[in-house]
Amino acid sequence: MDNDTRSCNDMLLMIPGPTNVPESVRMAMAAPCIYHRGGEFAALLRECIRGLQQAIGTARPVAILTASGTGGVEAAVANLLQPGDRLLALNTGKFGKRMGDIAALYGAEVTWWDCPPGGAASPALLKRVLAQGYFTAVSFVYNETSTGVMHDIAGLGRVAHDAGVLSIVDAVSIMGAAPIDMDANGLDAVIGGSQKALMLPPGLSFVALSEPALEKAHRTRAASYYFDLPRALAAIEKGQTPYTPAVTLMNGLREALRLILEEGLDAVFGRHAALASACRSALEAMGLPLLPTDRARCSVTVTAAHAPVGLDSKGLVTRVRDDSRILISGGQDELKGKIFRIGHMGDCGIEQLARTISAVGAALAQLGVTCDPDAAAVVARDEYTRHQENPDA
Amino acid sequence: MDNDTRSCNDMLLMIPGPTNVPESVRMAMAAPCIYHRGGEFAALLRECIRGLQQAIGTARPVAILTASGTGGVEAAVANLLQPGDRLLALNTGKFGKRMGDIAALYGAEVTWWDCPPGGAASPALLKRVLAQGYFTAVSFVYNETSTGVMHDIAGLGRVAHDAGVLSIVDAVSIMGAAPIDMDANGLDAVIGGSQKALMLPPGLSFVALSEPALEKAHRTRAASYYFDLPRALAAIEKGQTPYTPAVTLMNGLREALRLILEEGLDAVFGRHAALASACRSALEAMGLPLLPTDRARCSVTVTAAHAPVGLDSKGLVTRVRDDSRILISGGQDELKGKIFRIGHMGDCGIEQLARTISAVGAALAQLGVTCDPDAAAVVARDEYTRHQENPDA
Repeated sequence: MDNDTRSCNDMLLMIPGPTNVPESVRMAMAAPCIYHRGGEFAALLRECIRGLQQAIGTARPVAILTASGTGGVEAAVANLLQPGDRLLALNTGKFGKRMGDIAALYGAEVTWWDCPPGGAASPALLKRVLAQGYFTAVSFVYNETSTGVMHDIAGLGRVAHDAGVLSIVDAVSIMGAAPIDMDANGLDAVIGGSQKALMLPPGLSFVALSEPALEKAHRTRAASYYFDLPRALAAIEKGQTPYTPAVTLMNGLREALRLILEEGLDAVFGRHAALASACRSALEAMGLPLLPTDRARCSVTVTAAHAPVGLDSKGLVTRVRDDSRILISGGQDELKGKIFRIGHMGDCGIEQLARTISAVGAALAQLGVTCDPDAAAVVARDEYTRHQENPDA
Repeated sequence: MDNDTRSCNDMLLMIPGPTNVPESVRMAMAAPCIYHRGGEFAALLRECIRGLQQAIGTARPVAILTASGTGGVEAAVANLLQPGDRLLALNTGKFGKRMGDIAALYGAEVTWWDCPPGGAASPALLKRVLAQGYFTAVSFVYNETSTGVMHDIAGLGRVAHDAGVLSIVDAVSIMGAAPIDMDANGLDAVIGGSQKALMLPPGLSFVALSEPALEKAHRTRAASYYFDLPRALAAIEKGQTPYTPAVTLMNGLREALRLILEEGLDAVFGRHAALASACRSALEAMGLPLLPTDRARCSVTVTAAHAPVGLDSKGLVTRVRDDSRILISGGQDELKGKIFRIGHMGDCGIEQLARTISAVGAALAQLGVTCDPDAAAVVARDEYTRHQENPDA
């Protein structure tokens, strides 16, 4: 067993989650277990919720669920939608699709808005669609992990809010890396996960509901027992969770949030934006076209690019892993073999990114693609510095 | 934060879960995160499943879910029951009730078999009830944490099997502490949790399905996305889980199972039985009547006893905690204030139990109850030794 865990000590995770867990977070999780019905746990829960509220930009309580991000998405959907409700599901890839699939399972009538891979939904068009007054809710992924597309959360959120339509937002792969501003943007349900920008291992998900959303959840007889959000949110008042929570992960969450708030939320968001810009510039310098069709909609946590023509992206991923001990990702489902994805979130800086760019470049050269890895790494470093100095240029 | 976690270092958990987590398990969980779609994870998953199969006594694959025990129970129920199905729910307390409540939520017709607090259902009576041929399934808790009652799992399981009725068994608070013998007893769904006898923090649950149960799950269109067991069990073949698993907890699980198998399953089971017998003898020596009405049905992992007449058990629990830094539990729901419960499972030996008995005795004396704590601790030690030497006497 020691061999197994030791062998990954030097493996750098540059995938879109799970991400690298800082040492102090790992140590916090190794602390002895505390009892989940005592005052110590209540204090831990309160501190975690306070930190999450800042990351989400909300004054609303946040339910902490012992589940993967998908569990959090199911919780939001199952509590807000039931037979008779009509959902407009923005399908921008694997995770946008998942939200609609879950809604259908819970009996909602789902209308699909399919975006081509790399595309995003526009707030202007959403406004026209919602103006028909047909839909109960709209679901979308803030950051579509499968394509590296980041939605205009403020635009979509405000349009939905103004139309009186509930917005359900999967923010799993971006919470803690970019502003969500739930309250200001009038979002109704926001879902996060632990193993992404929040720098924790997988196992926790987070759901915040607006007041109208909580009212709807009370009217919806939740078809899930474990994912009963009104019950989870009510338990917070007593400093508890309805079922035994993953206490050790929560110890880690408190420490991870402390690290984020110590760096400063704006600084953390700026670092992610600069890393993403650096990654894009470096990949383009190597002649690799980005998957997102609109540069303004490129994700700050994961960059997706096409593999060179004639090259299976899986081979590139494997070579980077074997030659450089760095994990990047290939494409999923219909994008398998066609694209590769670099995650740059959480405990990640320009050093790790530059190493990754060099490794990708070296692998491409090995695979016969003309490419200057060192020059690309320099481009990444330069663009990172430039962006940190002047993000708006 | 350090203050908080440090303050619980000296708190002994003698509650029916979460339990004390051994040092080596905590260290295994502090290892860096590994990628859940790689070969290293596949090996980890396989090792965990192999160990769980031994604890459960089955050759069937075991789904590992990122969820509390309640999530595992919901997974089993949601995949096996749907509208039109008829469940006989053995209600022996909080957790037996929960199984039936979840089944009702998923549309099954639930018939309740209510046992008084401390009571158990008899296989002979079950046989007569099932002989009517009315029920699709029967649900029961192997070890009812709320009352300290342990069902005759072999008796109930075989009766259900012979009647062609699916048995759904919540073994959360006992898996790893007593034989389950799933295959030999013809059980159809067995659910376990991480934070009990398996000596892990909360966050994982386990579900094994028999072949007939898996067939039923395929016919039942699971009304939950996250808890889709056929999908979870199919993913095992590829060395994966459908959604991002709690990898660090699984690192801990592998180590905990290693510890259990190193001690030997029979030795572990024997230690739990001896601890339980020692606890019962000591409490009775202090004049405290046990809650279970049948001594043969007393749990090996949690002992529940009545508080002395006129004494609120909550006061006893608080005094033990404050004076001795030992956590024991009070009663839940209608048993609140009336009973107290001592957990003795997982990383627990006679030293910890004897300390707990002394502490309970000292607290009772403080509260004005005539009691000899030292004599009671001696009774516990003697009975532990006697039981280890001759368990059948």
